[in-house]
Amino acid sequence: MVIVRVMKAVSEKNDEAAAAIRSLLTEKHIKSVNIISSPGSGKTALLEKTIKMLPSDIKCAVIVGDPFGTSDAERIEVAGGTAVQLNTEGSCHLTAPMIAAAMGDIELDELNLLFIENIGNLICPAAWDLGETARVTLLSVAEGNDKVTKYRKAFYGADAVVLSKVDLADMSDFYMERAKADIASLNPRAHIIELSSKSGTGMEGWISWLQGLLAT
Amino acid sequence: MVIVRVMKAVSEKNDEAAAAIRSLLTEKHIKSVNIISSPGSGKTALLEKTIKMLPSDIKCAVIVGDPFGTSDAERIEVAGGTAVQLNTEGSCHLTAPMIAAAMGDIELDELNLLFIENIGNLICPAAWDLGETARVTLLSVAEGNDKVTKYRKAFYGADAVVLSKVDLADMSDFYMERAKADIASLNPRAHIIELSSKSGTGMEGWISWLQGLLAT
Repeated sequence: MVIVRVMKAVSEKNDEAAAAIRSLLTEKHIKSVNIISSPGSGKTALLEKTIKMLPSDIKCAVIVGDPFGTSDAERIEVAGGTAVQLNTEGSCHLTAPMIAAAMGDIELDELNLLFIENIGNLICPAAWDLGETARVTLLSVAEGNDKVTKYRKAFYGADAVVLSKVDLADMSDFYMERAKADIASLNPRAHIIELSSKSGTGMEGWISWLQGLLAT
Repeated sequence: MVIVRVMKAVSEKNDEAAAAIRSLLTEKHIKSVNIISSPGSGKTALLEKTIKMLPSDIKCAVIVGDPFGTSDAERIEVAGGTAVQLNTEGSCHLTAPMIAAAMGDIELDELNLLFIENIGNLICPAAWDLGETARVTLLSVAEGNDKVTKYRKAFYGADAVVLSKVDLADMSDFYMERAKADIASLNPRAHIIELSSKSGTGMEGWISWLQGLLAT
């Protein structure tokens, strides 16, 4: 007897879970933002500042992905937010089933906005649909101009690109106009936001973009 | 008729290729350094400066990995070095068979030192043996202290850890002593080097470490 076991590809299972998440978000009137970047581009710092600046009638929660540790979720909670920490134990991206499991730990009925802070990796997370409403790619100016074209898949699929740590731009030899032209050339529909979570410069543009997303 | 095809796992094929590379390097008296970091931590800048500072009797070449593009290999050549560019077309790490293929394009008989600039990714490259003599993990201070424990697999296996862009340390709220203690706790055998390729601070410690490697 030959036993044939049809195994669904991991990516196919992922896409089914992502579709289910998208349906649930629509039903609950929740917008979800999947934030992708290299390690240390400032995803958590941006979310800390965002939580403090969002109008109090916008209820948000954060699903925080890291290979190991809980420090980011702790930072979000100190900033006054609600966080669920996912540890991948060394794996390089979040998947939709992980997000579905984490959403089970969040009170969805009161929620408006669900942030997903992906694993710090500018390559692998770009290939995985997490059922998000919008995808945001962050690039710290300290990483240099060339990252846009080298790691282009992370920028192709972004609804918004945040150029972060602009307070370090001069010391990092970062050419803002060139970066913006490269992003626009790869992905003309991406909204580009320059900011520094540390100094607060440009934060109002980000908050405004989020409010626009919530109004859709 | 049933045809049974035994497929070796990709990782097993990788390890066979890595072992063959290691034998060839030993036979040719070449040392190889596999450099791993996030995107934009300064791998290429370090190599540009290294090529200019190494004594002229040390012959080196660089295998440069990127998802897309050739800008890093061009920078190495402008700095006076020999470079072979590998493009993974979006894949997240180099493999030993890629290195073996690139080594076919390099004159090995005169070579002393082969640098491998891995894909900018602090997760996936750590799991792949490239037949290297030594592994170096770079962390830019702009990425923040927490990366050591979060991305710990990249630090476990390192022979040396380079803390780069120290000229940005004050503006990045980076605590050098804490980082060094975290690295030492994870991997006591790792040699730790603080430097800025831009200002030149600490470069002599790196060059000295390379000379020590060549003398083994």
